[in-house]
Amino acid sequence: MNVLALNCGSSSLKYQLFDWTKSKKLASGLVDRIGQAGATIKHQNDEAPSTKKEVSCQNHSDAIEHVLKALFEGKKDLAIDAVGHRVVHGGSRFARSVIIDADVIATIEELIPLAPLHNPPNLAGIVAAKKLLPGIPQIAVFDTAFHQTMPPEAYTYAVPHSWVEELGVRRYGFHGTSHLYVSRKVAKMLNRPVTELRLITCHVGNGVSLAAIKHGKSIDTSMGLTPLEGAIMGTRSGDLDAGIIPYVHNQTQQPFEQIFDALNKKSGMLALSGHSDLRDVEDKYLAGDPRCTTALEAASYRLKKYIGAYAAAMGGVDAIVFTAGVGENSPIIRGMALSEMEYLGVKLDIQANEVTWRGVEGLISTKDSPVKVMVVSTDEERIIIEDSIALLEGRSPADPNFRYSFENGSLATAK
Amino acid sequence: MNVLALNCGSSSLKYQLFDWTKSKKLASGLVDRIGQAGATIKHQNDEAPSTKKEVSCQNHSDAIEHVLKALFEGKKDLAIDAVGHRVVHGGSRFARSVIIDADVIATIEELIPLAPLHNPPNLAGIVAAKKLLPGIPQIAVFDTAFHQTMPPEAYTYAVPHSWVEELGVRRYGFHGTSHLYVSRKVAKMLNRPVTELRLITCHVGNGVSLAAIKHGKSIDTSMGLTPLEGAIMGTRSGDLDAGIIPYVHNQTQQPFEQIFDALNKKSGMLALSGHSDLRDVEDKYLAGDPRCTTALEAASYRLKKYIGAYAAAMGGVDAIVFTAGVGENSPIIRGMALSEMEYLGVKLDIQANEVTWRGVEGLISTKDSPVKVMVVSTDEERIIIEDSIALLEGRSPADPNFRYSFENGSLATAK
Repeated sequence: MNVLALNCGSSSLKYQLFDWTKSKKLASGLVDRIGQAGATIKHQNDEAPSTKKEVSCQNHSDAIEHVLKALFEGKKDLAIDAVGHRVVHGGSRFARSVIIDADVIATIEELIPLAPLHNPPNLAGIVAAKKLLPGIPQIAVFDTAFHQTMPPEAYTYAVPHSWVEELGVRRYGFHGTSHLYVSRKVAKMLNRPVTELRLITCHVGNGVSLAAIKHGKSIDTSMGLTPLEGAIMGTRSGDLDAGIIPYVHNQTQQPFEQIFDALNKKSGMLALSGHSDLRDVEDKYLAGDPRCTTALEAASYRLKKYIGAYAAAMGGVDAIVFTAGVGENSPIIRGMALSEMEYLGVKLDIQANEVTWRGVEGLISTKDSPVKVMVVSTDEERIIIEDSIALLEGRSPADPNFRYSFENGSLATAK
Repeated sequence: MNVLALNCGSSSLKYQLFDWTKSKKLASGLVDRIGQAGATIKHQNDEAPSTKKEVSCQNHSDAIEHVLKALFEGKKDLAIDAVGHRVVHGGSRFARSVIIDADVIATIEELIPLAPLHNPPNLAGIVAAKKLLPGIPQIAVFDTAFHQTMPPEAYTYAVPHSWVEELGVRRYGFHGTSHLYVSRKVAKMLNRPVTELRLITCHVGNGVSLAAIKHGKSIDTSMGLTPLEGAIMGTRSGDLDAGIIPYVHNQTQQPFEQIFDALNKKSGMLALSGHSDLRDVEDKYLAGDPRCTTALEAASYRLKKYIGAYAAAMGGVDAIVFTAGVGENSPIIRGMALSEMEYLGVKLDIQANEVTWRGVEGLISTKDSPVKVMVVSTDEERIIIEDSIALLEGRSPADPNFRYSFENGSLATAK
């Protein structure tokens, strides 16, 4: 059974084709600059070196056509049995992955106001895949679904009641697929049931979110109604005093829309350091640059406070997990975030922290550290594929074997 | 030496006259509804029962005239040697209290954009007091001053550089006088030097802020550029995803100004519970009302997360202190905020928590609790008086005896 996982961004499409029966990745790739001049497809299959070429690509339908062409090239008998789609916002409607029908499509469309930048390309991908692969089941896997277990005290904002009742204003959280994946994987690595663990998972990439995962369920997360809240990100401010917004408006006469645009696209590490690539920030920090030093210290300090807050939310913590681009590759930020955390039972292994990057996973706390600190490579496509298989095989999400590779005790070796 | 402490709000004026030599409060009171119909003055002196009467009161100058009339009534030989003013926003200019001169007045005026609701009445009080008590030294005591010791990682927002450089956007923090007072007082109560303690002070009133006070210095606090950020308050939302604001605007077409007004005046506990008086919320919670239950749980959970975050910021905590109206009088919120905090070394004494309110101060953790939990009555006027005396006597804030009653080992008995 072959599953195609699709992750449609506003101008990009990431994909992976996975043979579930043989537990083997067959191909993967990326279409970039969709709808722009100079669109490209980078394709890698299991047998040949990767190729990259320019393509004409007006929209997501074109992009999927290019993907299918690349997949079927020289493999006329290839079967695609299901397509799993990443969908960013499932609102309060989807607490788990679902097989897509007209109702699901309508709901994803209704949820566009909550994720105006993300749900439209996700929808475009679904519509195009249905057209190009008619009759093949399509599955939606939501970034928000894993966080639907949050209790009211964690998802409730203290804002006017009508905003909550009529507009659905609440914390939803994002990166759920990644938080789910790394929480299950770290439980395996620690050889303990996830249902007995209190985990803090730190997804630190260009977007950053943390989650408090108690006994397998997300009980809090740092992103909110939108992905603007929480930690300091590549270009997003994360947490700030909302009172800053009218102050800046009154002082500069900038329209509010421009201020919100700046908070999303011109803030975060970029604003603090002047650089958008973290490697540049780290190089300048090592050379003693004061702005880059403050940028790294502020970003790490924010992570540290969330780790402390989530430990409080769960009455303690058993393991802290770092994942995604920065989380997997920045010993500097991990080291700063976890400095002086002995009070919590965290003893960082400085040496292990330094060498655990570039695809290396594992423990970066000392052997006797009461709280384990782990670096884990995330794999959101893996969850898209697993959930697609489970739903097609008719398993219920309540089934303890819903996700084969995590729940039945054998973490599949293929990734 | 008699010092008059004045605390001018937009429509109110709280005052206290204190005889420093005899360490005795001579009088105190409140002028309410300044500039409105039905203004009143409630006055209490050291010898007589309190009186309340209606007065005609157009502005803060009228209010101070009524105060002086009440103070001098039957005491023609009374001396006022200094006037200490509470000023809300001192920006980055004032890290300590100062004797007011033309330059100080100009700076408080320049800072009005940062505190448009608070600095103008504070200024009006200063101008009126200078006119009515000419030649008497006036002192400004700033809500923000105590937090000026925060390091960059705590006060820096990840927002565009020009907002920081040109507009002074940063965390300032408020309630500094209260955080300072209770931190010094709790050190005395614990019989330990404040310079050796890591304290989390929770000022929970109608406004709510927490501070991380490490070795006597504020290193972080929950209010920000404005008093909107942080914990859930009486009518202010505290922390929220800034992305909520354009979402509500787009969905409802409400002007942004109206949305920010709602976040300041129609949010918080009022929005969550439907009640503005916490006692009503608690009564309904005890009767099982679901909205009031969520309101209390959400507010307490926010406190719990800040306590966890600030413990992380200081590498642990020695004592947690509750103060102000709710902090001093709500065993329910204290109990919820501190539930399941054994991982941090907090063992709440349920019995002591229940009976420590209505003016009672003291320990509410068990005798063997590694982290002490204390309830302390705040007294911001006390700091206004102490700082006024210190500055008039020419002591430097660097002097370890700058504040007599705390720093020289004898906590004055008078309050």
